[in-house]
Amino acid sequence: MGEQIKRRDFLRKMGAGAAGLALAGCNSSFVGSKNGAGKPNIVVIFADDLGYGDLGCFGHPTINTPNLDRMAAEGMKLTQFYSAACVCTPSRAALMTGRLPIRNGMCGERRSVLFPDSSGGLPGSEITMAEALKSAGYATACVGKWHLGHLPQYLPTRHGFDSYYGIPYSNDMKPCPLMRNEKVIEEPAEQSTLTKRYAREAVGFIEKNKSRPFFLYFAHTFPHVPLFASKDFKDKSLRGLFGDAVEELDWSIGRVFETLRRNKLAENTIVFFTSDNGPWLTCHLAGGSAGLLRDGKGTTWEGGMREPGIAWWPGKIKAGVVNGGLASTMDIFATTMDLAGVPLPVDRVLDTVSMKDMLFGKGKSRRDTMFYYRKGILFAVRKGPWKAHFKTKDSFKRAVEEHNPPLLFHLEHDPSEKYNVAKEHPEVIEDIRRLVERHQAGIVPVESQLDKTIQKSS
Amino acid sequence: MGEQIKRRDFLRKMGAGAAGLALAGCNSSFVGSKNGAGKPNIVVIFADDLGYGDLGCFGHPTINTPNLDRMAAEGMKLTQFYSAACVCTPSRAALMTGRLPIRNGMCGERRSVLFPDSSGGLPGSEITMAEALKSAGYATACVGKWHLGHLPQYLPTRHGFDSYYGIPYSNDMKPCPLMRNEKVIEEPAEQSTLTKRYAREAVGFIEKNKSRPFFLYFAHTFPHVPLFASKDFKDKSLRGLFGDAVEELDWSIGRVFETLRRNKLAENTIVFFTSDNGPWLTCHLAGGSAGLLRDGKGTTWEGGMREPGIAWWPGKIKAGVVNGGLASTMDIFATTMDLAGVPLPVDRVLDTVSMKDMLFGKGKSRRDTMFYYRKGILFAVRKGPWKAHFKTKDSFKRAVEEHNPPLLFHLEHDPSEKYNVAKEHPEVIEDIRRLVERHQAGIVPVESQLDKTIQKSS
Repeated sequence: MGEQIKRRDFLRKMGAGAAGLALAGCNSSFVGSKNGAGKPNIVVIFADDLGYGDLGCFGHPTINTPNLDRMAAEGMKLTQFYSAACVCTPSRAALMTGRLPIRNGMCGERRSVLFPDSSGGLPGSEITMAEALKSAGYATACVGKWHLGHLPQYLPTRHGFDSYYGIPYSNDMKPCPLMRNEKVIEEPAEQSTLTKRYAREAVGFIEKNKSRPFFLYFAHTFPHVPLFASKDFKDKSLRGLFGDAVEELDWSIGRVFETLRRNKLAENTIVFFTSDNGPWLTCHLAGGSAGLLRDGKGTTWEGGMREPGIAWWPGKIKAGVVNGGLASTMDIFATTMDLAGVPLPVDRVLDTVSMKDMLFGKGKSRRDTMFYYRKGILFAVRKGPWKAHFKTKDSFKRAVEEHNPPLLFHLEHDPSEKYNVAKEHPEVIEDIRRLVERHQAGIVPVESQLDKTIQKSS
Repeated sequence: MGEQIKRRDFLRKMGAGAAGLALAGCNSSFVGSKNGAGKPNIVVIFADDLGYGDLGCFGHPTINTPNLDRMAAEGMKLTQFYSAACVCTPSRAALMTGRLPIRNGMCGERRSVLFPDSSGGLPGSEITMAEALKSAGYATACVGKWHLGHLPQYLPTRHGFDSYYGIPYSNDMKPCPLMRNEKVIEEPAEQSTLTKRYAREAVGFIEKNKSRPFFLYFAHTFPHVPLFASKDFKDKSLRGLFGDAVEELDWSIGRVFETLRRNKLAENTIVFFTSDNGPWLTCHLAGGSAGLLRDGKGTTWEGGMREPGIAWWPGKIKAGVVNGGLASTMDIFATTMDLAGVPLPVDRVLDTVSMKDMLFGKGKSRRDTMFYYRKGILFAVRKGPWKAHFKTKDSFKRAVEEHNPPLLFHLEHDPSEKYNVAKEHPEVIEDIRRLVERHQAGIVPVESQLDKTIQKSS
């Protein structure tokens, strides 16, 4: 753990030798396209603490997000799309690996996320999207917030990214350094120009790599608190500073799309947009809105983990489709491996399901379950439209509440989790209990990376 | 009151003789267009009890509304758009007249809406959109729910509509007759096919009048309870029966657009979509969702009166614009008079403001205030982004609460009305108090039409 794996081991874990990879890369639907070896470019844009209700196209009345609205109008809006955790670090670990944080130690009993005094990080034995795509010939860049370990061995450059530009953890953590690759270049980072600088970096990466397949992981710092916006956006939104920050984020995403269009890359690039977890409601107006969903960040109510999801690929994903199929940020892993022709690792449990059929209108979502963890403990489970809460912890309450029988909600009829129907559907609860047993039997305890801190006196 | 006004009186009230009307009809921007005298066709589609959060384009995850989503994508989404009342009858009276219900008796102390035993209705002295547009040469039809009086003298055909097809009051009121013009043709109305039949009627009216200017008021019966959907829609929505009803409503709206396109009327037709009031939350899952807004129908919280608003006119209204300007259903009156070249009545107080500049991208909303009445009593006032609640009545509480000082919310920062900032902004409250005084000085008491019932023993 914590060590870089060898290239040979990596290929074995991915279930293919070099030949196998090459073969997979020759997936017929991509052969002959202009870009590199025919693999699509992949862009994953990740917001921080953005709520389900914080975009125009997801119903916010006073946050103006024309670029994301256009992305949705030209692509697919995913309305039952989940992050893998209700807070930052585990959510990002799951996005990068297609695995629940409980499997790789990226959750803690004591701590929910990594802090500046943490000594842990994403283990080197994990296979990230970036590593896998790099092995298939992709240029890879991470721009923005990382939060999967800030010690050198955990940085993006050690996890498959050719380059890194951003802050290594949340912007409310001191000293909030800005890094390029493995060096601190500004400390503390000047946050008011961060979104602008990220955008410039993202655009530069695309421009530089337009003639080969690339993977851009564009992970915004905002709208996590403390909120900042550049002078072009400050005091411009009807929604106040939170809206200013989201509108600047939207602008920066517009820059990415403009770059893709100008370079005629649109038809060979898939773009995903989502966020790491729901709105931080205890920050009041400095936090966002989960729209009609209940509660927010740090909770396993829908508002904590259901996110705005948008997928875009002109010519491949039909324009203007709203898809209520169940999907997760973890599924971006299998989907992009599928698209890039990279076989999935065979030596570990994965929690990722390819969304390819669903995105391309060739079938329904193949995901049927969602596990809602909080601090490494399973709080709730969704199966089909049903969600059972075994435990809940509200944003504005201190205590964890236990529920036996669990609370049961039909999320498609009752997305706001208002009407507990546990009494009416004991058979659904039994079914979910059996699912939990099977799931938990497959979890192997590992050391928590989040509870490890730099020893001050030992 | 209650009598039909003479044509001569009507023209005087509209501030123009026949010559004046003709002149106004020659508004240069419409001269020379293909349709009739160059006036645009006008379609107002009105849902019943649809919440701010119940459409795909306003953020609902499991109600699929592709036709309304397309309408928004091709037109303007209005995100601070209000009905004039939190319940049906007064809301519709205000839409039809551009006047607050308190001015024409269409609100009551005892009763919130008209019931089958009511003897009142919209007074004949009121000038409806239909009358005004008819005077300017429009063919006019009302399809759907009326609820402004079911005695003969109050029916749509006595208020400027050439024809009427629909139910005269809410679908939960007995005996729920279906009427054509002034005759009952089915009692009780078979509700499961009502949306389909309304759609056929609306399409037929457009087809029949495609060579002259027309005004279609298409007022749906659903998603008011009891919910129904035809067999093509029943059990099809992820959201259950409520979603089925909304999805069928969306389909019927698609039929209207298809008819406009097929007859090449799109570029000469303005279409508005909205609802009469917010979701009926006490109906639980048979009621809708106000999204991120607080509370629902029957309350003066935002969820009770802010509605999804969409305006569409290809070539005139820019596609895909989200506009957070303040506007009201009452403003449809002045806007359509403006577009049809009909002068506004000069002998009465109006509460309508033309949205023309705002819709055509030529300026901001010219509305700055909203008055939130409940049962003829002023509960709250919005001025700019600020809303002061003097009284509130929650859906799930019996009592009206008085607030002194009023609760104060900044609706653009805090659309969910969570953070009372009365203490921080006494000057805003003073300003709103002065506004209330001026407003109330202009209200002349009139007889309530809603409190009048058929006398059984006197």
